[in-house]
Amino acid sequence: MEYHQNGFRPGDPAISPAADISDACTDKVDVLIIGCGPAGLTLAAQLSAFADINTRIVDQKPGPLSVGQADGIACRSVEMFAAFGFAHQVVHEAYQVNEVAFWRPNNDGKLARSNRIADVEPDLSEMPHVILNQARVHDFYLDLMANGPRRLVPDYNRQLLSVTRGDGDHPVTARFARLDSGTEEVVHARYLVGCDGARSTVRSSMGLSLKGASARQLWGVMDILAVTDFPDIRLKAAIQSAEAGSLLIIPREGGYMVRFYIELDALRDGERAADRGVTQEMLIDKARAILAPHTLNVREVAWWSAYEIGQRLCDRFDDTDEDPRIFIAGDACHTHSPKAGQGMNVSMADAFNLGWKLASVLRDQSAPSLLSTYGTERHAVARELIDFDRDMARLFSERGKDKAAADRFQAYFARHARFTAGVETSYSASQIVGRGAAQHHATGLQVGKRFHSAPVIRLADAKPMQLGHALKADGLWRIIAFAGRDDAGEPGKPMHAFCAAYDRSGLSDAVALLAVFQAGHRTMDPMRLHPALIPPKGALDLTDFHRVFCVDPAADIYAMRGINRDHGVLLIIRPDQHVAEVLDLSDLNGVSGFFAKVFV
Amino acid sequence: MEYHQNGFRPGDPAISPAADISDACTDKVDVLIIGCGPAGLTLAAQLSAFADINTRIVDQKPGPLSVGQADGIACRSVEMFAAFGFAHQVVHEAYQVNEVAFWRPNNDGKLARSNRIADVEPDLSEMPHVILNQARVHDFYLDLMANGPRRLVPDYNRQLLSVTRGDGDHPVTARFARLDSGTEEVVHARYLVGCDGARSTVRSSMGLSLKGASARQLWGVMDILAVTDFPDIRLKAAIQSAEAGSLLIIPREGGYMVRFYIELDALRDGERAADRGVTQEMLIDKARAILAPHTLNVREVAWWSAYEIGQRLCDRFDDTDEDPRIFIAGDACHTHSPKAGQGMNVSMADAFNLGWKLASVLRDQSAPSLLSTYGTERHAVARELIDFDRDMARLFSERGKDKAAADRFQAYFARHARFTAGVETSYSASQIVGRGAAQHHATGLQVGKRFHSAPVIRLADAKPMQLGHALKADGLWRIIAFAGRDDAGEPGKPMHAFCAAYDRSGLSDAVALLAVFQAGHRTMDPMRLHPALIPPKGALDLTDFHRVFCVDPAADIYAMRGINRDHGVLLIIRPDQHVAEVLDLSDLNGVSGFFAKVFV
Repeated sequence: MEYHQNGFRPGDPAISPAADISDACTDKVDVLIIGCGPAGLTLAAQLSAFADINTRIVDQKPGPLSVGQADGIACRSVEMFAAFGFAHQVVHEAYQVNEVAFWRPNNDGKLARSNRIADVEPDLSEMPHVILNQARVHDFYLDLMANGPRRLVPDYNRQLLSVTRGDGDHPVTARFARLDSGTEEVVHARYLVGCDGARSTVRSSMGLSLKGASARQLWGVMDILAVTDFPDIRLKAAIQSAEAGSLLIIPREGGYMVRFYIELDALRDGERAADRGVTQEMLIDKARAILAPHTLNVREVAWWSAYEIGQRLCDRFDDTDEDPRIFIAGDACHTHSPKAGQGMNVSMADAFNLGWKLASVLRDQSAPSLLSTYGTERHAVARELIDFDRDMARLFSERGKDKAAADRFQAYFARHARFTAGVETSYSASQIVGRGAAQHHATGLQVGKRFHSAPVIRLADAKPMQLGHALKADGLWRIIAFAGRDDAGEPGKPMHAFCAAYDRSGLSDAVALLAVFQAGHRTMDPMRLHPALIPPKGALDLTDFHRVFCVDPAADIYAMRGINRDHGVLLIIRPDQHVAEVLDLSDLNGVSGFFAKVFV
Repeated sequence: MEYHQNGFRPGDPAISPAADISDACTDKVDVLIIGCGPAGLTLAAQLSAFADINTRIVDQKPGPLSVGQADGIACRSVEMFAAFGFAHQVVHEAYQVNEVAFWRPNNDGKLARSNRIADVEPDLSEMPHVILNQARVHDFYLDLMANGPRRLVPDYNRQLLSVTRGDGDHPVTARFARLDSGTEEVVHARYLVGCDGARSTVRSSMGLSLKGASARQLWGVMDILAVTDFPDIRLKAAIQSAEAGSLLIIPREGGYMVRFYIELDALRDGERAADRGVTQEMLIDKARAILAPHTLNVREVAWWSAYEIGQRLCDRFDDTDEDPRIFIAGDACHTHSPKAGQGMNVSMADAFNLGWKLASVLRDQSAPSLLSTYGTERHAVARELIDFDRDMARLFSERGKDKAAADRFQAYFARHARFTAGVETSYSASQIVGRGAAQHHATGLQVGKRFHSAPVIRLADAKPMQLGHALKADGLWRIIAFAGRDDAGEPGKPMHAFCAAYDRSGLSDAVALLAVFQAGHRTMDPMRLHPALIPPKGALDLTDFHRVFCVDPAADIYAMRGINRDHGVLLIIRPDQHVAEVLDLSDLNGVSGFFAKVFV
């Protein structure tokens, strides 16, 4: 963590100094967020970093969630939590998914383990795949917001009645029924984001709807405390029984609870999940049948539900092509079956994509056209998710006695582990994603994908760390300059020339410069670096020593990420950690040209 | 983390269910702790784990510390924090000490770096050596206590007037002046622990005093925010100038603040540190002189002090040999110079040694004679600390122009890194430390020293983890059974025989059994383990899958810790993580004989 740069402050460094917001309006805001789910809270947490942005977040519920539906947290989401500063807390509490077991009938027709594989391939991410109650993820976001300079806290008991767009400075108007007082409340906003779930009022106010077919397949889910002799009860396990259907086991945080996804019956046309009168006893009986001959003694059902699998998608995620003012994110844009463990992750990634863009436009750094990239980028991701989810659900429901089908499911599952981990998301070329002019100099850091972290050693304090953890969720763009072979921070070399150009560019308020050298960290003198690499920081103009890194000989980032040792390379990283462009270290025009499209 | 074993509970799992303490007295308590420093808070945190122990902790100050004196946290202390469950938070906030630089005049008389070494040797501990404001360590302890079943919170504004010992159930009586209300308060306690610092009232009430000589050397310390061209400003650096004296640089948490320990003048006989009228300007001037020709531009002094080096020790740490009721811990027993970074760590280790013993006696598990081992064990440690500190201080004050002396300092420093890390503490044979009957079967896990962690893979969920992190600060003894070559949990083998004996022993309430196997974790079936290794747990009799581990092929604990692969070995681990005995896996009599001395 970086703190004390504006002077020593006692107490918890996660708590920012409070901004003076005594003249802030609650009925005229910069951003109004509808819904305190994973999307809404990610967005609020991102915006809460900015003392000059007036954000409000409201929810229909009377208070924070205590038992959540979602629980799967992909590696990529944990990386994002690291950028927000609470990954260590999530990892501490969560169940860590290390391996996946596949079960199906053996040749004698008896249920047996057919395979057991690593859940995440080596070096896919520096972060684990974990499982944690969605409510706890909410709690971490709520703490973060409450500790931000504006001490952002949700307003509950607000039922959204309508959203309309007009003119003026705050063109979006939202009307709420206050469920606590019975009165009505009107809020005007520059921007409104509907994170209000699958039955989004914001979406219907925009005249949009979710489209797509249902698989007409009923599933049950339950979080239980149980005793069993099934040996893989603490592993993620996909079980395809001969005739009784399929079951997915997701062990839960704390070491005792476990989630079961249980295949129930196909639904008839027009029939809804609720029509079947599913009970928790039905789920337990079905789980027992699938697990037979193993025992299952359920001691407590913490939560259960029945649902119909469906993959549905909204045509667009904003209200207009030019100057969009109303957006939807998360389940309001796309729904899918929960088993793929994607829902919460994709929703948070939606908001992480949108948050910095809203901040950049509201802070007059970028033109409003930046906001149009949100819908384009995230719609493509949602489309991909839905296709994946449909295939996955279909394959999982095939009977375990069909060996070929079970093999197809396992192969598909393994192949798509990268997708499930959230690290395959790739944004296409646009005003904020380049075409990878020097992609051949960094073959493992693909334009459009998230920056794939690797170990480095920080020069000034010899700290072994992940380079990706220097990319905080602070709304800054970053340039990472990887030095070529001959460049160890000496004057006159390409790195020095680039630093000088960066210094002159005037970009330093919005674009932070980081550098990585191939030299051993004990051989370099931080005081001989170009001043742009050890810039003054904070109210006291202290020296920022957090920008320069050297190769960790035990895990060489150049080798791991295919970086050209002779030439080095320049990466431009977006505030959401995606690689925006890969350029030659000497391509100063490429850098200025790129940012000319980003900033006003 | 382990939770939900008594049923699902929403919310932060670090918050225990509240115990009913409505009939608990505040003027008649089990343990009364005087002082909210590192020793007092460690003790309170340990005792707060037990719903059935009535603890009070008081302090003279009006509230929690916000700026602390101490900042060095040794590897061993971070290991202990892991047992308390907050190591991840400390590591997240702290500065990590990775390397140490040594500076002295070169042959031209110019200050130059003479050496740079790793601060901690490889595999000394799984935890880093970190630096963090003592006040933040207090905060983590205060959170832990407040989240415990009795919601323990300190009572401030209590100035201790006297401590007396009488008879009866609560033989210790403490009288306080309440600094808030002006009234007097009397508390009766079964046990009282004075963690009230170098000028301990508890100690003087016991008729004891600190003994030892002062080195008559004045030092200054300051925490500053500064700009300098000294290249190792973010490294721990020991600087011995030619004539201007010595300086120790300790970079601080947050990336900007730094602590300087500055050698000032020798004191004349009878002169005290306060007599010199030291100012912060004097400290800055002196630091500049030592660092010359490097610049030092101090922007803010967050805290500073001047002190005299002295090593002093109390003859005993308790009031009687038989049935001690009054104890002292931390600075009340021993003082030393702060530069060695030992003070906070040794104080916390004092309390960690005492806490479980008090709990064991109060809960009628052990005879009161157990408490006598506290003074014996910790006095020996304090003696060693003081000898180390005296040598270190003397060597550091030698002039840098004396190359031989500077070499002696560096060599001493490097050799004693293990001591400084806190991992060399070794308790002698006693009723709770055996003689290592099978020490030759586990050469790297020495009787008397703390259990030296190594990686393993947890069988049930394939989690790669540190075995040491299974040793929680919960007051439990543990047996770790390392299987021999042929034993993979099959019936009839030594492990099975031991498990059966453990089952019959009736020890399971106070002694948890863990097992490590050499087999690959994918080859073993947890359901075929002896039931003692997957016991029922909690109110719902759920299965505890947290006790069985397999070798991690990437870091083989048998090889790392010298464990006999053919025979295996049994370790008995104390509640404070020290190895109490090493026995042959078949030595069932050795186990029962050992615990016959521990438990009533």
